[in-house]
Amino acid sequence: MVKQYAVIGLGRFGSSVAARLYESGQEVLGVDVNIERVEESNEFVTHAVIADSTDPESLKAIGIRNFDTVIVAIGNDIQASILSVLLLKELGVKKVIAKALNNLHGQVLEKVGADWVIFPERDMGIRVAHQLLSPNVLNFIEISKNYSVEEVRATEKMKDKTLRELDIRAKYNLSVIAIRNDNELTISPSPDKIIDEGDVLVVIGENRDLERFANLS
Amino acid sequence: MVKQYAVIGLGRFGSSVAARLYESGQEVLGVDVNIERVEESNEFVTHAVIADSTDPESLKAIGIRNFDTVIVAIGNDIQASILSVLLLKELGVKKVIAKALNNLHGQVLEKVGADWVIFPERDMGIRVAHQLLSPNVLNFIEISKNYSVEEVRATEKMKDKTLRELDIRAKYNLSVIAIRNDNELTISPSPDKIIDEGDVLVVIGENRDLERFANLS
Amino acid sequence: MVKQYAVIGLGRFGSSVAARLYESGQEVLGVDVNIERVEESNEFVTHAVIADSTDPESLKAIGIRNFDTVIVAIGNDIQASILSVLLLKELGVKKVIAKALNNLHGQVLEKVGADWVIFPERDMGIRVAHQLLSPNVLNFIEISKNYSVEEVRATEKMKDKTLRELDIRAKYNLSVIAIRNDNELTISPSPDKIIDEGDVLVVIGENRDLERFANLS
Amino acid sequence: MVKQYAVIGLGRFGSSVAARLYESGQEVLGVDVNIERVEESNEFVTHAVIADSTDPESLKAIGIRNFDTVIVAIGNDIQASILSVLLLKELGVKKVIAKALNNLHGQVLEKVGADWVIFPERDMGIRVAHQLLSPNVLNFIEISKNYSVEEVRATEKMKDKTLRELDIRAKYNLSVIAIRNDNELTISPSPDKIIDEGDVLVVIGENRDLERFANLS
Amino acid sequence: MVKQYAVIGLGRFGSSVAARLYESGQEVLGVDVNIERVEESNEFVTHAVIADSTDPESLKAIGIRNFDTVIVAIGNDIQASILSVLLLKELGVKKVIAKALNNLHGQVLEKVGADWVIFPERDMGIRVAHQLLSPNVLNFIEISKNYSVEEVRATEKMKDKTLRELDIRAKYNLSVIAIRNDNELTISPSPDKIIDEGDVLVVIGENRDLERFANLS
Amino acid sequence: MVKQYAVIGLGRFGSSVAARLYESGQEVLGVDVNIERVEESNEFVTHAVIADSTDPESLKAIGIRNFDTVIVAIGNDIQASILSVLLLKELGVKKVIAKALNNLHGQVLEKVGADWVIFPERDMGIRVAHQLLSPNVLNFIEISKNYSVEEVRATEKMKDKTLRELDIRAKYNLSVIAIRNDNELTISPSPDKIIDEGDVLVVIGENRDLERFANLS
Amino acid sequence: MVKQYAVIGLGRFGSSVAARLYESGQEVLGVDVNIERVEESNEFVTHAVIADSTDPESLKAIGIRNFDTVIVAIGNDIQASILSVLLLKELGVKKVIAKALNNLHGQVLEKVGADWVIFPERDMGIRVAHQLLSPNVLNFIEISKNYSVEEVRATEKMKDKTLRELDIRAKYNLSVIAIRNDNELTISPSPDKIIDEGDVLVVIGENRDLERFANLS
Amino acid sequence: MVKQYAVIGLGRFGSSVAARLYESGQEVLGVDVNIERVEESNEFVTHAVIADSTDPESLKAIGIRNFDTVIVAIGNDIQASILSVLLLKELGVKKVIAKALNNLHGQVLEKVGADWVIFPERDMGIRVAHQLLSPNVLNFIEISKNYSVEEVRATEKMKDKTLRELDIRAKYNLSVIAIRNDNELTISPSPDKIIDEGDVLVVIGENRDLERFANLS
Repeated sequence: MVKQYAVIGLGRFGSSVAARLYESGQEVLGVDVNIERVEESNEFVTHAVIADSTDPESLKAIGIRNFDTVIVAIGNDIQASILSVLLLKELGVKKVIAKALNNLHGQVLEKVGADWVIFPERDMGIRVAHQLLSPNVLNFIEISKNYSVEEVRATEKMKDKTLRELDIRAKYNLSVIAIRNDNELTISPSPDKIIDEGDVLVVIGENRDLERFANLS
Repeated sequence: MVKQYAVIGLGRFGSSVAARLYESGQEVLGVDVNIERVEESNEFVTHAVIADSTDPESLKAIGIRNFDTVIVAIGNDIQASILSVLLLKELGVKKVIAKALNNLHGQVLEKVGADWVIFPERDMGIRVAHQLLSPNVLNFIEISKNYSVEEVRATEKMKDKTLRELDIRAKYNLSVIAIRNDNELTISPSPDKIIDEGDVLVVIGENRDLERFANLS
Repeated sequence: MVKQYAVIGLGRFGSSVAARLYESGQEVLGVDVNIERVEESNEFVTHAVIADSTDPESLKAIGIRNFDTVIVAIGNDIQASILSVLLLKELGVKKVIAKALNNLHGQVLEKVGADWVIFPERDMGIRVAHQLLSPNVLNFIEISKNYSVEEVRATEKMKDKTLRELDIRAKYNLSVIAIRNDNELTISPSPDKIIDEGDVLVVIGENRDLERFANLS
Repeated sequence: MVKQYAVIGLGRFGSSVAARLYESGQEVLGVDVNIERVEESNEFVTHAVIADSTDPESLKAIGIRNFDTVIVAIGNDIQASILSVLLLKELGVKKVIAKALNNLHGQVLEKVGADWVIFPERDMGIRVAHQLLSPNVLNFIEISKNYSVEEVRATEKMKDKTLRELDIRAKYNLSVIAIRNDNELTISPSPDKIIDEGDVLVVIGENRDLERFANLS
Repeated sequence: MVKQYAVIGLGRFGSSVAARLYESGQEVLGVDVNIERVEESNEFVTHAVIADSTDPESLKAIGIRNFDTVIVAIGNDIQASILSVLLLKELGVKKVIAKALNNLHGQVLEKVGADWVIFPERDMGIRVAHQLLSPNVLNFIEISKNYSVEEVRATEKMKDKTLRELDIRAKYNLSVIAIRNDNELTISPSPDKIIDEGDVLVVIGENRDLERFANLS
Repeated sequence: MVKQYAVIGLGRFGSSVAARLYESGQEVLGVDVNIERVEESNEFVTHAVIADSTDPESLKAIGIRNFDTVIVAIGNDIQASILSVLLLKELGVKKVIAKALNNLHGQVLEKVGADWVIFPERDMGIRVAHQLLSPNVLNFIEISKNYSVEEVRATEKMKDKTLRELDIRAKYNLSVIAIRNDNELTISPSPDKIIDEGDVLVVIGENRDLERFANLS
Repeated sequence: MVKQYAVIGLGRFGSSVAARLYESGQEVLGVDVNIERVEESNEFVTHAVIADSTDPESLKAIGIRNFDTVIVAIGNDIQASILSVLLLKELGVKKVIAKALNNLHGQVLEKVGADWVIFPERDMGIRVAHQLLSPNVLNFIEISKNYSVEEVRATEKMKDKTLRELDIRAKYNLSVIAIRNDNELTISPSPDKIIDEGDVLVVIGENRDLERFANLS
Repeated sequence: MVKQYAVIGLGRFGSSVAARLYESGQEVLGVDVNIERVEESNEFVTHAVIADSTDPESLKAIGIRNFDTVIVAIGNDIQASILSVLLLKELGVKKVIAKALNNLHGQVLEKVGADWVIFPERDMGIRVAHQLLSPNVLNFIEISKNYSVEEVRATEKMKDKTLRELDIRAKYNLSVIAIRNDNELTISPSPDKIIDEGDVLVVIGENRDLERFANLS
């Protein structure tokens, strides 16, 4: 089902959200006070308008109530971000998502009604640090405080061995969910699957076991 | 093994990377031209210094060659970011990671030697858009162009049913890798596992199947 | 009983509040980010410190929790005003009073916890307009939507008449509570009291009657 | 009788004066050098024009001589405020009211001819301080150096007692002029009137007695 | 008799006044808010201090009451100029001279008490225009609306003639008061005095006669 | 004969020169880069144009060669003043007069060809100082290093005396050229002329004698 | 053969390159972000356009691929210079020449693909220093590390002597290639050629011999 | 003989001049108003001082009279450049060389006494254009309006031929003065000299012949 999104603030983060939503076939309204940004956004939104989201009349004029979800992605103007969220909730927008610059800003956004507060640079910093700590880990999601799913690059030692020979479950207490390389993806690989150079293993397990496996194997 | 990291630019993104590395027990040098940022960073780095990373003498003076990895997290000054990466590679730093503001900036960073170029706000935008599109999906990693691992919140329809009854593999062509709730995590759950309200399923499969499952079930 | 007040922001409004409290024998801490204002305030506060009220550490350092009431009188920086109120309430200050620049600002201040929001220039504007409309009215308080107590200058027509002759209660449906001139104040004046030039009558009654009395008599 | 007012400077204070006058049915001309302020003021003035009040030709062009009263509510530009008052008096405006930022400014305004000089933020600061000192006092007017009329919230101790029982006149030397609550207002209440929770007493008397009554009773 | 002068504002005009007074053996205090100007003025004043003339405390601290005459030569800051004059008169300075930028400014200066208001650039412009109109006139003073004393360069036609031959009084209705050249000055020259090339005649008479004489002879 | 003047730079000094020339019936072209100044000058010049006097094409376009005299009255932009004078002389303007801000500036103006360099604020400063030193002297011209013509206000001591009685020539070595009051002007007054209160004497003589006469008599 | 050049950045250096190319009959496109510069350049380029060379769409729109050579002569904006070179090479321009402000800038320009990097002010500084060191040398080219061709002004000692008499080859180990004066140029002059005052000798040889010859002879 | 040079303005051009002079063993004083530039110049000058070259006292204090030659290499401040040259000549410096930004600036510099005016960016632009027009020409000096000495890269067609075979004098009317490659330099090469790939010919002749030879051969 196609939904209606409005993205207020078309900087790097806002543009990225808007473009991805638009590529997925959603209706996306782009809003910014800056005419150049509005013009540039025409390629990746359904409509784009110049409007000041801290002015209730402007928000009404663009019919903001009709949008299912509004993302307030205002760059550095904390005041504008706070007032926009307040107004959007007052106007009856159901779901308001807002980008915060820091914890204090995040707290105010919640107090004035934001349904979801995002810290893009802080969260991306955490992801980058994780990857630096385990360079063989290409991607990950934490599924509990101690457990994660990770993509781990096959190391030299694993090469030309079967999963059975590597005995990952016994040695590291991990499950191999899938194996992929440039050509194919094998979900729930059989124990006889031979690891090739360039293979990437999708593994689930405890973080400390994953770290041992990613760094030492 | 403890490694030595330097983070140049202690804004939101740089601070986040530095703090996570430091919490993981690594040695982290924080570098910024701004005295206030250097002072504030003392809580989450091993050492912090004021230095201009576009000045070769400054970089030598802080012994930048001895660091395994340098993250250039300079905020908005494209020129400083480019010159810093050039100098770091010239001085022989093995791994230089740099934050780019846009594609053009990213290309230049690669040309002058950056080993890994990151687009934090663009990537975070994509993650947020994904989550908006499938609100039941809490987290995800794409493991190939068409396949992902996702965390999906159990919907009303799934409640009190066993995995066998739901027949996810047959109906959606997906594998349930794990199930978690606030209290426990079950890896490779048995077909008799009963889904509770609040359970989150970790599922692997094709994106279009995952979308069907997350949105419609 | 002496109370402890802190006034954050020592501009015209903040200085005026602080000075009056201090003159009344209260303990008043003056706080501002501007060194000149802090220095100038030394004449009308008990202590004055330079501190940034948007920084939790600064607020803790000056022991803000120990103050009974904190007045956030920050001039034009809406963002600083909002963050200060949030922090003060988080730190446990019981009564936080904040100056708002406009309605939207006032709403946010309430959402983040302000116990009393003041609009000094708007309210003063109303008082001035009232006085312009009825130039004989020197001062007033509205005690309900329709009733006020007002100070009304005696007009030429009233001169040398007794209250009985003027028959204010019958003609205007008003009670004369007191009569004052430069020398004396007569509370509950007798009906035989003769009105002099320069007398001011303190009168209670309905606004429309007061207006008739003040302008036409 | 409808009068003609001009308000020069449509900031917070000027707008508030203008709006109140306009609501009272007066003719109000709004004047500002800033086009946005002039546009926004259209809702609360009869006419609004862009004009520079330090330019005699501009003042003549808008027919400023025809106005009974001109309020110079210029925000922070002391020089413009002074020159405007001088010009208005030279052009023959009878009553010129001007807002002063500080005492020195106020003195100059008087020297160049202002008929009434107002210090809105200073005066509002005094009102707020007064209310903080006696939290039960909701509103007040000083009718002489030592006497005031005040609205005092009924305290727990007064509840369910008659005025006679409270014996306010004897104990505090005060007269109760009126009693109001959300529903009704009783002027000159009888001694048998029973005080309810939420009642507000309008009292006249000496300040020190009022303070004793408001804080201790 | 040596007098005490203070010059506030050490720009081009103020410096020139101060230097001339100092050269004449007077005691001159130079005052400016700008440290560089104060330092540079040390060569042409008795003392020089940094002080803000809009701050009563500063003025008292430098003992401004003790000066016979204070010249307010503040460059372009109309507001500072007005407040300084007001304060100086309030502090009891007998003679306050102030430089005005334009007529309006001049009027305010008079209203706040300036004893003499000067318009240096306007007056100098008039002198320059006068000299352009009559290039042979080197200098002049108007002694009434129609009469002036002027220095007129001797023209070719006058050369080698006696005053009697030129018959200036009869032809132009002018009196020759003096004749000067590089070597000598002859006051009340005799009718036999022969005019030399390079002589300058000091002449008194009606302006229209002077103009005829200066331009045509 | 009517001449053609151009005044470049319509600030206070330039406007004053232009206005006086125009009032004398000359043709005056006003030139400035600032549109507002050009518009305001329309009342006191024959024509006014916006032009950049540092651009040779602009100067040619306004036909600057046809002007007899050009006054470069540019306010504070030393560079523009220098380049303008250079260009005007290159284009063949016969007489170029330029205002200098200081001695160094004056020297450069002469080197690039200025025919007459003026220092308005310095010269006006000297005039003001002179008048302060001898308050009875209303006006003066120095006709040699030691001799001046001065207008001296009659003092109390002179009142009701004849010139003969005062014996000015003998006592002060001065000649009285003329005597004026509000009503009449007497050139070469007779020795029997009686001095009235309010009379002003036009006197010629040595400076030290003039000073004695003006201050002490 | 006529070639097509584009010059990006029409400051002093860019204008000079463009003008010389245009005078030589080449087709030259001038590009700048500044409208005034584009307008002024119309006299010395074939076409001139306003375009932002850091925007790929702008570069495509002006058909930059069709130019044989593009000179990036951007003044002080290092970032714009780098991005422009990157884009030009990406768009397939064969020869990109870029002006560098310093060595670091020069290195980045080479990394992003510049075919020739120029340091105009550094190189011109070297030429000026050379000429100061040997004031008789009017011009020079270094043809190897130690050998140059130089134009040397004939000194007093050379006057009226033949080349044979001077014996330059034997004494200084130099060859005289040509002799020129204001009227004629003699290539490979005969040994009997007599040196005149004002002659300039074009000489080839080792630098130390040239220096001896130019300074001492 | 070692001379004494002062370079005022240590930007790119000034630094380059100073460095080359210093490398040649001369004594060089570096002067700038900017402390950072003065500090950075310490590597390539004998002494470096902070001084304002528009202030006569500063120039005297650094003993500028004792320098043989002063180069005024001030970047963009035309006014400072002009005043500095004027002062240097007034102080008696024999040789003052100044950098001009444009023709007008150059003319003023000459009028105030500059002995040699340089246009570095214009001249470098001309050199770059020349080289673009004849890419085989590596370097050149114009020795008269029509004749030049040029370094021409040997083209494919010349390879393995003797000078006699190429018959350059007959076909192009040019003389080959020298031939160089990476290893050696042959002055006045014999007709039997064989041209190798990579050889560079130093040729003298008419410009049109040189162009034919460089481009077509």
